[in-house]
Amino acid sequence: MNLTPAIINRQGEMFGRAPPLLTDLYQFTMAYAYWRAGRHQEPAVFELFFRDDPFGGAFSLFAGLHDCLLFLRSFRFTDEDVEFLRSVLPPVTDPAFFQFLRGLDCSGVTLRSIPEGTVVFARVPLMEVAGPLAVVQLLETSLLCLVNYASLVCSNAARFRLAAGPKRKLLEMGLRRAQGPDGGLTASRYTHVGGFDLTSNVQAGFLFGIPVAGTMAHSYVTSFTSLAEVRPQTLVALNGADPVDIISLTKDWLSRVCEFLGGEPGKICEGELAAFLSYAIAYPQNFLPVIDSYSVGCSGLLNFCAVALVLCELDYRPVGVRLDSGDLCRQSLDVRRVFRLCGEHFSVSAFDSLIIVGTNNITEQSMAELNNKENEIDVVGVGTHLVTCTRQPSLGCVYKLVEVRGIPRMKISEDPEKSTVPGRKAVYRLVDAEGRPFLDLVCLAVESPPEAGVSLSCYPLMCDSSLVSVTPAQVTCLRQEVFTKGQVRTGCDCAQITVAVS
Amino acid sequence: MNLTPAIINRQGEMFGRAPPLLTDLYQFTMAYAYWRAGRHQEPAVFELFFRDDPFGGAFSLFAGLHDCLLFLRSFRFTDEDVEFLRSVLPPVTDPAFFQFLRGLDCSGVTLRSIPEGTVVFARVPLMEVAGPLAVVQLLETSLLCLVNYASLVCSNAARFRLAAGPKRKLLEMGLRRAQGPDGGLTASRYTHVGGFDLTSNVQAGFLFGIPVAGTMAHSYVTSFTSLAEVRPQTLVALNGADPVDIISLTKDWLSRVCEFLGGEPGKICEGELAAFLSYAIAYPQNFLPVIDSYSVGCSGLLNFCAVALVLCELDYRPVGVRLDSGDLCRQSLDVRRVFRLCGEHFSVSAFDSLIIVGTNNITEQSMAELNNKENEIDVVGVGTHLVTCTRQPSLGCVYKLVEVRGIPRMKISEDPEKSTVPGRKAVYRLVDAEGRPFLDLVCLAVESPPEAGVSLSCYPLMCDSSLVSVTPAQVTCLRQEVFTKGQVRTGCDCAQITVAVS
Repeated sequence: MNLTPAIINRQGEMFGRAPPLLTDLYQFTMAYAYWRAGRHQEPAVFELFFRDDPFGGAFSLFAGLHDCLLFLRSFRFTDEDVEFLRSVLPPVTDPAFFQFLRGLDCSGVTLRSIPEGTVVFARVPLMEVAGPLAVVQLLETSLLCLVNYASLVCSNAARFRLAAGPKRKLLEMGLRRAQGPDGGLTASRYTHVGGFDLTSNVQAGFLFGIPVAGTMAHSYVTSFTSLAEVRPQTLVALNGADPVDIISLTKDWLSRVCEFLGGEPGKICEGELAAFLSYAIAYPQNFLPVIDSYSVGCSGLLNFCAVALVLCELDYRPVGVRLDSGDLCRQSLDVRRVFRLCGEHFSVSAFDSLIIVGTNNITEQSMAELNNKENEIDVVGVGTHLVTCTRQPSLGCVYKLVEVRGIPRMKISEDPEKSTVPGRKAVYRLVDAEGRPFLDLVCLAVESPPEAGVSLSCYPLMCDSSLVSVTPAQVTCLRQEVFTKGQVRTGCDCAQITVAVS
Repeated sequence: MNLTPAIINRQGEMFGRAPPLLTDLYQFTMAYAYWRAGRHQEPAVFELFFRDDPFGGAFSLFAGLHDCLLFLRSFRFTDEDVEFLRSVLPPVTDPAFFQFLRGLDCSGVTLRSIPEGTVVFARVPLMEVAGPLAVVQLLETSLLCLVNYASLVCSNAARFRLAAGPKRKLLEMGLRRAQGPDGGLTASRYTHVGGFDLTSNVQAGFLFGIPVAGTMAHSYVTSFTSLAEVRPQTLVALNGADPVDIISLTKDWLSRVCEFLGGEPGKICEGELAAFLSYAIAYPQNFLPVIDSYSVGCSGLLNFCAVALVLCELDYRPVGVRLDSGDLCRQSLDVRRVFRLCGEHFSVSAFDSLIIVGTNNITEQSMAELNNKENEIDVVGVGTHLVTCTRQPSLGCVYKLVEVRGIPRMKISEDPEKSTVPGRKAVYRLVDAEGRPFLDLVCLAVESPPEAGVSLSCYPLMCDSSLVSVTPAQVTCLRQEVFTKGQVRTGCDCAQITVAVS
């Protein structure tokens, strides 16, 4: 996906949303203590990584890099920011520190990172942030905030995609249940990176060029009570000239449908028919109503067929239906059977390619079940469980100091898994003869890199400590320098999103 | 909490963050279909409510109203927005519709709402949005997005507060694990409404006036290797004039502490001592280090005592310590015992009032356990489980059409609990003779309100359908008109936040 410069500018504005005050207070108290001790300019290196793969799985996708680059590029405190800090830091704080803050930016910072959208694993350092101690310390919370949720929701989307298989179209529609407005926006963006085809979120389409989709809600259907509300009451055929009286045509088709399918006219909801017809008049080429506002079998499906047959008679192609409650699999089979019967009986070929959209509290598990249970669902819309990541709503990325003034640093914790691995690292992806990656190798930056065709020994992380010997057919350096001394590197110009799973 | 006008302006900027495009595409396709049928100006009423209390509990707090008011007040499409909509809506869309959108605002909208921070219950309509059909339809997704997470995280905070009891101080520190930047900001804001005392989030302090707190992270501690890094190496006593050589004073105190407590000097980490001392020199009145970077018992606690005793000798008051790993309860007892022993032995009264802060993946359950297990933790910091609401990361508020042109509307669903209750309602809170609310009464707006001292019969929601009879001692109308024809009402001027649980 390529983003135009205009879109980048819009993003820049949006992600003025991670202002430099959006961080923890202790970053400033520490920065002050460094500054007071004259240590603020000491070269320091932090690593960003997570300790466990999310959702009890064996991988994650890395995402949020783009937002981090925009954040670094614009990292600067305003006078107003500095005045606020003056009011919350202890009164003893030396006034010269605030002048120091006012002049601060990321011109001394270098970021090495794994590319956006890459499959990654626990405990592998995803980002390395190097620069003056006080500055790279100040960046911690914001970088974590930008990477944690983006990677989590991107990984969740990839799991839904894997569960759905490659063919079904997936629509993200979680904005209303997201954790705040840009929780929703971030979700729309990174679920697309993780393998979703479409979003309902218009702002995400506007900012990121993601294809948007959607037709109608139940409220639209229930807002109609009778055919008298349908206006205009005519429609011109696709290549026609004269308006056709669509009310009488629809009534005619509805009775033919009822007769053919054994529907009871008394159970048909006229408001629903009016809603469908009204929508079809507005968008005759985009007719995809939600058919479960009253009863799919007794009303919604019959009304759909009647209006779709009217459209076909006028040379338009109806698109399909949406099911939003009940047993989606069973209903989709019933609906498809009716489409086939009607298509044959009324000789309308358009009925062969109608699509069925299913939306109803879909989880990763229910998505996987769709592959085991007979059904006719072409597009699945996922909201809550996708965007809020119900199974695990946070990724525990941490940001740990590994080197100061060239000296490796380590934290030893009361919880052994919270101890850190000291020193600056390099990360290589080892690929086998068939071109399949089989191991990500973390070694010290000063060690010589692995070579293709040469056997090497390494310790698998978090397993027992026995050495294993491997011979890569190919080696790639997994991290790239994406931000150097205040500048986003060419080729990483905030416009590169790699879709790793599709 | 009162917000000054300056803060309101800042908020206004922030919540330009819920632009009117941040919604689902189908709101526009429906709006078009209404407009095409000439129905867009029909008076319509939507209700916002949730179907189940969150976290398996029996209540929720309602929050997000303030953001909704700011959103409604500034709801307007720009030329750029409209051009984007033109590019994604079907080409057949009448150009006059885009002119209609360009001129749209909330001048015809009226919002009746329960006040911010009120205890509320499932299925009670929290908000009633009345106005032109097309406009109130367009507002759906944004209002849901603004209320759902705010109410969820506010309710979660209230549950943590109830679990913690009224005395313990609670610090929100979840920004890094939040679902996106304003997920974090929203969390800081509404956990304060829900009963938290402090936040680590500086931006939340800046925008909302919430007290901010924080001192140091492990990275600060591990960045030091030796006492040579401590600069300056002197400190002036609180009311003194001459700089005191603090290095030799600290070494002296450390050996006295080790001797008294039986510490082994060989296990003391010098870098940690340097970090504590350096911080104490910078902020001698705010000394509260994290003491588990290496080992609490063998190093951190001894180093703390030495530096704290130096500060006491110079007439400063050390504040306390933070524990961030291991068994917090057990460690807090050990730490308190050492504080008491040192206080007595060295005759320093300041050691009697040292506070212990505990932070380590606290859940609502582990917070409740703090009340059953012996411990000495004064302040609890909560991050991940608070802000992401791990137990239930979304509140399922919905927005349902209940009336059009004065005619009640209803949705009947394949899932019975998704059916709606038609017609415009009024909501009353009934209070007993002791001043305790005992029932929220939902009735049709046209019904006469309940009267104090007069018995009435009602059906408990979601129970069996038997009538119950109650006599309120007092009746309050739970919803107020907070936005009328485009204007925020006086007294609801985006500055009112009611803290319902404290």
